[in-house]
Amino acid sequence: MTNRRVALASRPSGMIEDNNFQLINEEIRELDQGEILIQIEAISLDPAIRGWMNEGTTYIKGIEIGAVMRSFSAGKVIRSRNENFKEGDYVEGLLGAQTHAISDGKGLKVLDMSSGKLSYHLGVLGMPGMTAYFGLLRKGKPLKGDVVYVSGASGVVGSTVGQIAKIKGCTVIGSAGSDEKCKFLIENCGFDYAINYKKEELNKKLKEYAPDGIHIYYDNVGGETLDIALLNLAKGARVIICGAISQYNNMGNIQGPKNYMKIVTARGLMTGIIVFDYVEEWPNAVKEIAGWISDGKIKVKEHMVHGLDNYVAALKMLFTGENFGKLILIP
Amino acid sequence: MTNRRVALASRPSGMIEDNNFQLINEEIRELDQGEILIQIEAISLDPAIRGWMNEGTTYIKGIEIGAVMRSFSAGKVIRSRNENFKEGDYVEGLLGAQTHAISDGKGLKVLDMSSGKLSYHLGVLGMPGMTAYFGLLRKGKPLKGDVVYVSGASGVVGSTVGQIAKIKGCTVIGSAGSDEKCKFLIENCGFDYAINYKKEELNKKLKEYAPDGIHIYYDNVGGETLDIALLNLAKGARVIICGAISQYNNMGNIQGPKNYMKIVTARGLMTGIIVFDYVEEWPNAVKEIAGWISDGKIKVKEHMVHGLDNYVAALKMLFTGENFGKLILIP
Repeated sequence: MTNRRVALASRPSGMIEDNNFQLINEEIRELDQGEILIQIEAISLDPAIRGWMNEGTTYIKGIEIGAVMRSFSAGKVIRSRNENFKEGDYVEGLLGAQTHAISDGKGLKVLDMSSGKLSYHLGVLGMPGMTAYFGLLRKGKPLKGDVVYVSGASGVVGSTVGQIAKIKGCTVIGSAGSDEKCKFLIENCGFDYAINYKKEELNKKLKEYAPDGIHIYYDNVGGETLDIALLNLAKGARVIICGAISQYNNMGNIQGPKNYMKIVTARGLMTGIIVFDYVEEWPNAVKEIAGWISDGKIKVKEHMVHGLDNYVAALKMLFTGENFGKLILIP
Repeated sequence: MTNRRVALASRPSGMIEDNNFQLINEEIRELDQGEILIQIEAISLDPAIRGWMNEGTTYIKGIEIGAVMRSFSAGKVIRSRNENFKEGDYVEGLLGAQTHAISDGKGLKVLDMSSGKLSYHLGVLGMPGMTAYFGLLRKGKPLKGDVVYVSGASGVVGSTVGQIAKIKGCTVIGSAGSDEKCKFLIENCGFDYAINYKKEELNKKLKEYAPDGIHIYYDNVGGETLDIALLNLAKGARVIICGAISQYNNMGNIQGPKNYMKIVTARGLMTGIIVFDYVEEWPNAVKEIAGWISDGKIKVKEHMVHGLDNYVAALKMLFTGENFGKLILIP
């Protein structure tokens, strides 16, 4: 029986290149006592992967050269020598970009398949959904009537932030990179306004849609978008830094938010969200979001790519904005 | 009777120049009913003046061309046609850089001269002292044992922040631009550590003095110093933006804090202080600080410059770091 995996061949110094990765076939070894074998059915591709390809960061270790590309993946237990897992269980965790994974079970979550289909546990019910939920609710503290602006709005974090904000009675503005994505935000997700930042002037549109300013800016992109959002803060605004995808490939020359003094004049604050800080509260959040999905209050959009051969092409989509919805690789 | 005043002749586009200012002598007109005439004895020179020279900002109007340079000044009422003020009262407010001012009394504070000498009401008992007090206590929320780092530490805001932090049981690190200033911080103000940023490597020294990170960074300078502070945050750190003096003359090309993502990984937050938000609480804060001064817990350092002719040279000192202590112009 063979495992096929994507390994880190070399560290990129800017934008990822094909030669940073290598596809490897290898025989699957026997399980030791306490281990399980998982057949992976869905691999999550997230911007955070770019950070993990560096030597290391302050809060998480970098991927070692030759090791499987780190990813949150989900699949079925097909062999078990661990009493906490039985064959047929569905599990999710850092199982990597591969067809099969051997695990001692540590850090794995057994999935409640009644709360949503397998791939949802990598998106709206997984880390990105939790990032949206805890970032918006705990750090943004939305009040009814607040104006919430979210960038990268058609991604799973962004669309979940916007839809939860709508549930909380906010006015919601999203920005995304195509008319199709903007149409999805308005028609499917119930956003009040959507801005195609590639065609429309973001600052002008924000001033039009939020003449009294933005109370919560949920930042998924960084760069110029963050700077423009800072120009449009309402008094007491909360700026939540989630990602800085525009800066991830920008080694050693990060663009800081030059309008950061606007946080002062707006009597606002800038903070961030580290989703792992809330891990003990995830199960309750999963239940609440699953309820919203089944009530039709949260719509989910997925972008499926098939085959490990397409791993690099799929990963690049995250940085070009080509994907539309949560990017899932089916190995 | 003649008034001599410094007027704004033109708006600077970067660093201030002599030709942005003009000295004007003019006859003092008769008072209307409700007005008072003040003989100004002390003029405060503050970094905020540079901002007021621009066309206008989000929270305060720019100085008009030809108008007197805006300044907090203090002096004695020498004529009064306003029942709220009597001759001999000492008052403080936005009375400008001039020898005499006519005012309708709005926004003027009658000074309690028992709480400190006149110039103190422009410094440690005035706006800068209030900025230190409310910024540190309300935004920084110092806890006993916290490590507090303050830049621009030998200025009135910085030295007051550090000394209040010491009163609150914190470990205090300050940075300043000369050995003389650093000596003052340690020997007079009771700081635990002082860094001469012109001679020592700031990042290395912060790591040495705060090996477990900084809990509160009180930023008076912006630029590179802010970026280095962000590299040294402890978990849950509060970054308080007070000024960005290194950036005030840097029109249109503000350097944003490129390490802003460290706020996220540190689970910290960045916020600011607008001292006018606390104006109703100033009298109590003045009393508390005056008490600390008379108990010897807060030391005050002033830098007096004499003569309106020296206005521009004195103002420039703020941006070159040449002044040592609260800069006061005696007209």
